[in-house]
Amino acid sequence: MARYEVLSDDAMATIERGWRRLLQDIGVAFHHPEALRLFREAGQIVEDEVVRLDPDFVLDLVAKAPATFTLRGRDPDRSFPVGGDVMNFVPVQGPPFVREGDVRRDGTFDDFCRFLKLAQVYDDFDTAGGLPCEPNDLPMDSRHLDMQLALMTLTDKPYSGGQVSLDCVHDALALAAMAFGGAEAVTREPVMYSVVNVNSPLLYDERMLDALLAYAAAGQPVIVTPFLLMGAMSPVSIPAALVQQTAEALAGVALTQLVRPGTPVVLGSFLSHTDMQSGSPGFGGPEAAIGLFCSGQIARRLDLPWRSGGGSLTSSQLPDAQAAYEGLNTMLPAFLAGANFVMHTAGWLESGLVSCYEKFVVDLEIVRTLREEFTPLEVDEASLAYGAHQEVGHGGHFLGAEHTLERFRECFYRPLLSSTENFERWKRNGGNDSAERATAIWHAALERYERPPMDADLQAELEAYVVRRRAELGD
Amino acid sequence: MARYEVLSDDAMATIERGWRRLLQDIGVAFHHPEALRLFREAGQIVEDEVVRLDPDFVLDLVAKAPATFTLRGRDPDRSFPVGGDVMNFVPVQGPPFVREGDVRRDGTFDDFCRFLKLAQVYDDFDTAGGLPCEPNDLPMDSRHLDMQLALMTLTDKPYSGGQVSLDCVHDALALAAMAFGGAEAVTREPVMYSVVNVNSPLLYDERMLDALLAYAAAGQPVIVTPFLLMGAMSPVSIPAALVQQTAEALAGVALTQLVRPGTPVVLGSFLSHTDMQSGSPGFGGPEAAIGLFCSGQIARRLDLPWRSGGGSLTSSQLPDAQAAYEGLNTMLPAFLAGANFVMHTAGWLESGLVSCYEKFVVDLEIVRTLREEFTPLEVDEASLAYGAHQEVGHGGHFLGAEHTLERFRECFYRPLLSSTENFERWKRNGGNDSAERATAIWHAALERYERPPMDADLQAELEAYVVRRRAELGD
Repeated sequence: MARYEVLSDDAMATIERGWRRLLQDIGVAFHHPEALRLFREAGQIVEDEVVRLDPDFVLDLVAKAPATFTLRGRDPDRSFPVGGDVMNFVPVQGPPFVREGDVRRDGTFDDFCRFLKLAQVYDDFDTAGGLPCEPNDLPMDSRHLDMQLALMTLTDKPYSGGQVSLDCVHDALALAAMAFGGAEAVTREPVMYSVVNVNSPLLYDERMLDALLAYAAAGQPVIVTPFLLMGAMSPVSIPAALVQQTAEALAGVALTQLVRPGTPVVLGSFLSHTDMQSGSPGFGGPEAAIGLFCSGQIARRLDLPWRSGGGSLTSSQLPDAQAAYEGLNTMLPAFLAGANFVMHTAGWLESGLVSCYEKFVVDLEIVRTLREEFTPLEVDEASLAYGAHQEVGHGGHFLGAEHTLERFRECFYRPLLSSTENFERWKRNGGNDSAERATAIWHAALERYERPPMDADLQAELEAYVVRRRAELGD
Repeated sequence: MARYEVLSDDAMATIERGWRRLLQDIGVAFHHPEALRLFREAGQIVEDEVVRLDPDFVLDLVAKAPATFTLRGRDPDRSFPVGGDVMNFVPVQGPPFVREGDVRRDGTFDDFCRFLKLAQVYDDFDTAGGLPCEPNDLPMDSRHLDMQLALMTLTDKPYSGGQVSLDCVHDALALAAMAFGGAEAVTREPVMYSVVNVNSPLLYDERMLDALLAYAAAGQPVIVTPFLLMGAMSPVSIPAALVQQTAEALAGVALTQLVRPGTPVVLGSFLSHTDMQSGSPGFGGPEAAIGLFCSGQIARRLDLPWRSGGGSLTSSQLPDAQAAYEGLNTMLPAFLAGANFVMHTAGWLESGLVSCYEKFVVDLEIVRTLREEFTPLEVDEASLAYGAHQEVGHGGHFLGAEHTLERFRECFYRPLLSSTENFERWKRNGGNDSAERATAIWHAALERYERPPMDADLQAELEAYVVRRRAELGD
């Protein structure tokens, strides 16, 4: 598929000058002694907790990161490559709240599991991620154990290890070692990813660095992501935000390669704007779309797999028209920009505060449509269907033409949610809008869910670990 | 703005071979003796009503059409160029029904006038078109008179002359001659456009040819538009549909140049699919988007102004999520493809059967967003806002930075409809979805409407003509 690029060579050079200057002259703060030690020993200038980074040193490290790598699933058929021309899709991650039809409430572990099952049922998703919503009904200190166990047993796709604490990271790695043939095998062939957010501007905090250092050492890919709302975490200028995003992400990528050269890593981005009237974050606007076009172009120049923030992002409170146009106006630019790892593909609502089941279905329709839309078109003699024209002639119709009859089942995208019913028929069938129709669709998908098989001994071993660790953590 | 092109040179050559073969070997039927006479006298092979066209003869005629032209508005500030890098936007055209909130009903002349006023109020529209909905409450034979008078008095933008009958065409030209300095001045500088649809496949009917011939002779631009629902009016293959669309449109364009070489004309397209389950038309799908990418590329090769079918097209029955994602998935590809004349920009619902006030507002937000999104990004030293980084440093925020304070009013797109309110505030403000909020927006816009000034004598002259002609037509 063709990429859409908007930055001229001159513009790219200006942006490169910009991030080089940020790294070198303002530097990046790392609130972690180990990170500071690694940079100091590699010859970088460290003052207090700020590291002034030589941009060429950074690029040398970045060049050690692989351009593509494979995430291994418990079912080998679920393994997938990251990078290059491939796009991976992850459902919404992180919201504390859930919307189910008209009800908006705290997310629960039951919701968490239901979103995992939906991500398992639909082949459109490469992974369920790690946190489709927060399971607020579980004890805080040990919930990562239940989440990891659910990710490993309710799905057989690769998953996210979580980065909420060092306990979480170590437990995720320990459980993976049981399921994937030992710690060394896991390090050799990664099975989980994690997302490390920068505390923008230009700062990595201790918790995030704990996760980055541990996962990088264990060979598990880290998605280093500056989360920039222009006006809050970055200047109110797209080029300035791109420069900052690149400087921040490259500093984190460089650190992963200092820890373990060649460890897989993803250049992350998440760039949107602040609504300067309300002070609230805004999503799906023109600035974020332009940011996506440019971010993809910059990532390709750096030859790293690239994560786009969205996905199908929106500030809307409901799965309505706003949710759909803001969502598509993030997702379509992500396709045009050639995103590799697409987070928040389905279900995101209310600026990321809500995981919504109905929006999940709306977004699934969007991503399926776009996958068709950006499949290269084959144009050859057969595709011209000249015989059909000879058959039909002037003013006829093609519904009964041989060419049509041979192809009518597969010739067009078949929608999941969209209705073409005429008004009378639609009215007879309940007169429901698309969000209302979506409810039946995700309910039916859950009915189709089948738990993937797992060796009983392994299952028992994982469960025993969780029980033991939960007790140790005092929950 | 950069264009998105998906056809290789090979694919373009295959498509050209295809439309050349259709013109030459299958030909185009013209149900009009004058059209047949013109082609016969120009040396083309005419058998019964089918003209086999020499493709090079067609291209020679096409080359006589201007690459750009200007439509003159009654207010000269409302005149606009068509073609080149310019995009023009027209609201929904043609639906017999109207949706206003929860009510779906027959369109009336009052609706017609209200949509004209909305198109006048919002500078986003270059023209109100000619038929934002059907005024079903007016007598059939003379309603074109009321419509033309309304178009000329309620707006001062260029408009469409209509093509429903020869009476309609002649009356439109006569009224325009009164308002724009006589028939000769109108012919020299066009003031109205019309849309001539092909009765695809490969047939022009008498009514459409009446309009094409009369408008071409009077120098008023005709938008020659094959309306192709793949599976019904064309084969179920995008390349086949593109070939047919090009052959049909070029045949009509050639005819305009036979009538009056150099007369302005627009290469039209309207390509979507038939839902093969329901037999109903489908809009906003991947096939239509691919069709837009390719149609734009073909039109640029032919150096003609290009009309894209949509616009913001949808099959949805309500201004809901489906309406928004299908609409945006037509409009965004139209931008990427570089459409010049964008029909059905705002208000289209239910596969074109309904003009919807709330959808009008949703679509206005979409087109405004995209205009920002496809404005070239300026990347220079100032845009990098280095001073803001020096001011804010590590881990701070930019809300109070000098760079932000100087720019916060204008730095981002300001939405018309979208809400970024947090849940509690949104709930307090009524908890309305975007379609419900849209009602207040179009009501307020109508309140702001001001009738553009018109010379009292001219007004009286136009009205007298309408009264006289209405009597002659027996209404």
